Amino acid sequence: MSKFKELKRECYEANMQLPTLDLVVYTFGNVSAVDRAQEAFAIKPSGVPYSDLKPEDMVVLDFDNHVLEGKMRPSSDTKTHAFLYKEWSEIGGIAHTHATYSVAWAQSQMDIPIFGTTHADHLTSDIPCAPPMADELIAHDYEHMTGQQIIDCFSSKKISYRQVEMVLIGNHGPFTWGDNAAKAVYNSKVLEELAKMALLTLQINPNAPRLKETLINKHFQRKHGKDAYYGQN
Amino acid sequence: MSKFKELKRECYEANMQLPTLDLVVYTFGNVSAVDRAQEAFAIKPSGVPYSDLKPEDMVVLDFDNHVLEGKMRPSSDTKTHAFLYKEWSEIGGIAHTHATYSVAWAQSQMDIPIFGTTHADHLTSDIPCAPPMADELIAHDYEHMTGQQIIDCFSSKKISYRQVEMVLIGNHGPFTWGDNAAKAVYNSKVLEELAKMALLTLQINPNAPRLKETLINKHFQRKHGKDAYYGQN
Amino acid sequence: MSKFKELKRECYEANMQLPTLDLVVYTFGNVSAVDRAQEAFAIKPSGVPYSDLKPEDMVVLDFDNHVLEGKMRPSSDTKTHAFLYKEWSEIGGIAHTHATYSVAWAQSQMDIPIFGTTHADHLTSDIPCAPPMADELIAHDYEHMTGQQIIDCFSSKKISYRQVEMVLIGNHGPFTWGDNAAKAVYNSKVLEELAKMALLTLQINPNAPRLKETLINKHFQRKHGKDAYYGQN
Amino acid sequence: MSKFKELKRECYEANMQLPTLDLVVYTFGNVSAVDRAQEAFAIKPSGVPYSDLKPEDMVVLDFDNHVLEGKMRPSSDTKTHAFLYKEWSEIGGIAHTHATYSVAWAQSQMDIPIFGTTHADHLTSDIPCAPPMADELIAHDYEHMTGQQIIDCFSSKKISYRQVEMVLIGNHGPFTWGDNAAKAVYNSKVLEELAKMALLTLQINPNAPRLKETLINKHFQRKHGKDAYYGQN
Repeated sequence: MSKFKELKRECYEANMQLPTLDLVVYTFGNVSAVDRAQEAFAIKPSGVPYSDLKPEDMVVLDFDNHVLEGKMRPSSDTKTHAFLYKEWSEIGGIAHTHATYSVAWAQSQMDIPIFGTTHADHLTSDIPCAPPMADELIAHDYEHMTGQQIIDCFSSKKISYRQVEMVLIGNHGPFTWGDNAAKAVYNSKVLEELAKMALLTLQINPNAPRLKETLINKHFQRKHGKDAYYGQN
Repeated sequence: MSKFKELKRECYEANMQLPTLDLVVYTFGNVSAVDRAQEAFAIKPSGVPYSDLKPEDMVVLDFDNHVLEGKMRPSSDTKTHAFLYKEWSEIGGIAHTHATYSVAWAQSQMDIPIFGTTHADHLTSDIPCAPPMADELIAHDYEHMTGQQIIDCFSSKKISYRQVEMVLIGNHGPFTWGDNAAKAVYNSKVLEELAKMALLTLQINPNAPRLKETLINKHFQRKHGKDAYYGQN
Repeated sequence: MSKFKELKRECYEANMQLPTLDLVVYTFGNVSAVDRAQEAFAIKPSGVPYSDLKPEDMVVLDFDNHVLEGKMRPSSDTKTHAFLYKEWSEIGGIAHTHATYSVAWAQSQMDIPIFGTTHADHLTSDIPCAPPMADELIAHDYEHMTGQQIIDCFSSKKISYRQVEMVLIGNHGPFTWGDNAAKAVYNSKVLEELAKMALLTLQINPNAPRLKETLINKHFQRKHGKDAYYGQN
Repeated sequence: MSKFKELKRECYEANMQLPTLDLVVYTFGNVSAVDRAQEAFAIKPSGVPYSDLKPEDMVVLDFDNHVLEGKMRPSSDTKTHAFLYKEWSEIGGIAHTHATYSVAWAQSQMDIPIFGTTHADHLTSDIPCAPPMADELIAHDYEHMTGQQIIDCFSSKKISYRQVEMVLIGNHGPFTWGDNAAKAVYNSKVLEELAKMALLTLQINPNAPRLKETLINKHFQRKHGKDAYYGQN
């Protein structure tokens, strides 16, 4: 029996959440899950409709993109996932979608401002939008460089991938991550909600102010801080 | 058998309406129901997905936030509910959501103007948006002060909580209430519809006029006045 | 057995289409169906949720608003329906909704311009928006006068109720009609689609031109003209 | 047994995808499928609700619009399909819808700019909007001329129907095509997504730049180029 059976099941179930949550149509999007002990991750096969997916279709690779198990070609975005797993040792899952409002902000090449407590419940800064890639990087190793671009964006903005579990790639779309694949998908859905709320806010009041720091901290701390009182533990 | 069994069931059923009516995703939002005779209210436990909720999970508290029954931690917004029940003796249920269009208006920090009869069928004034809280109140006892902020807003605007069963908290989102928990949820759904209609109205005609007083009164009175002829009694 | 049994079933089935087509929430909206031979119409009872409706709940009235059959109070908009049936002898059904985009245009107090062939497939003019009612009429007999206002609007704009089967009441919402109740509901759905398309068109191109007359006539004639070749007869 | 049985089934199944994918209401829209060996195509009958359709209802015609099989009247847009099959020898299916965002762009008479990689995954240019037809052509043979107009648009813009499988007809709506009927419908859904994303992008940033050429080519090539690595073959 495969030593990756559990990993593939986790990956499969997280992928199947994407159409359920209206985050993708057709074969758009992909989710991966990592097994740190085995230094391997499972990811959706490329171009397969969600309705046809089975747990055993998930492709398992190491962090240098060698296939360890699976007969199908992995997602065309696989190298981006591999690079993020390698560089960010504490993430357990990654999701990528073409969800409508998230993509609209990415195409606008603008950070999503933090306008309210729904946003602050999840992160304390604007949602960063990485700039489009330089031409020489596109030509070189595009998906690998997409990972590099995400990491450079977080580094230059001095934000931590543990605090901010989402990013927009300019002109492309969102990547999100978390402790596991299900959490990565959760963050994709939350990002889509925040993206829609922010657009509507600007339509009502183009001068809507950012949330003030005291409220940002209060909401984030009550959910994620040392004395958090949201949730059951 | 619990003397709060009926109360918990009312609370549970009203909470389960939130995802059905597309007012929440994941664990967002919460509804409570009050038993005035027993001076107690039941509320959703914090951070539990709606699909996992059971009637017996509801947490029962008194108006000073002491847990009377229930093993789970109550909603992080519990103190806001408790304070409103204490101050406003005639409400029977309270709902809080992060519904998209309602939040967008809250983030815009603007009252929702009364533009039409759909609005006047439910209330005769603009839907008030309370300003964001002062920093010293946030630091002190945030959720309790959120209740205070709502009451101050109604007091300063000289509106009655019996006539206007909904409010937006600036930068946060909506609270609604009513004779019972189901009516509180109904008001959350109506508010979301009014919020969407008002935004679209301003997009079509930025100078759209408020509804005139004669029509406001006619529609509200035919539904809620002494000689009301809407509904079956 | 009731001589209105068929009429009540037609009315019931048309009403039940409103929530199915996402045109109403809760108890909003109402549809009626007329029996010209018996000079009677059936209409939804007031304030009853669609999920509770039964065919036998429909209320039957004559054109002077006398109840002929039914135990429940008829829709609060009944007098508007009665007046339209009386004045416009060829209509077989009437629908009224608070559908979101239709209401947004009504609240904007603007006609919906004819921008494309989807519109011209159904009518050859802008969709008229009747102005809000004068105060003395509101005070007098509001719902009856709403019918009067619709008829005055068509009269002053010189449009025929056989050619244009829909109207917006300023600040209120849409009324639609047709050969029977099902067609009236169909027109409510089409109106909502046209209202949404027109708003989005103006957002993309605020100077979008009206459809030119040759295309208006071509599309309307191919569907409704003497030599129509749309449909199966 | 009919020699067109398979063709009619393919056509039927593709048509039934239109309501499933929220691209049409009622009887709007139509899809056809072609059998090149038999020089015949099957198309939806005119004005029949999707819920009533059966495979045997599909109408089969030759490229000069003579009915070869079928008792019902074919779609009123049949001549447009026939002309495209005749002129463009490599397409296997055609779809026409009145999907909301696609129609909004068509009514705006504007090409949809290529703003991101979702667009570049499918085509490398803006989505062309053909201008409204000249009056003398409308009077002559409208649906035939609609086909002519599409071909003239592609010819004048020097784009290939193999590279760009979608077009907007000014003031009307979208036509899409592909290797078979299912692919034509796929393109209608993708177009609707791209139309919505582009509108939202402009609402966030009216000066959003077009995607740069290096990214356009990278994304199109990785999915459709000689060394494509998207999908399973």
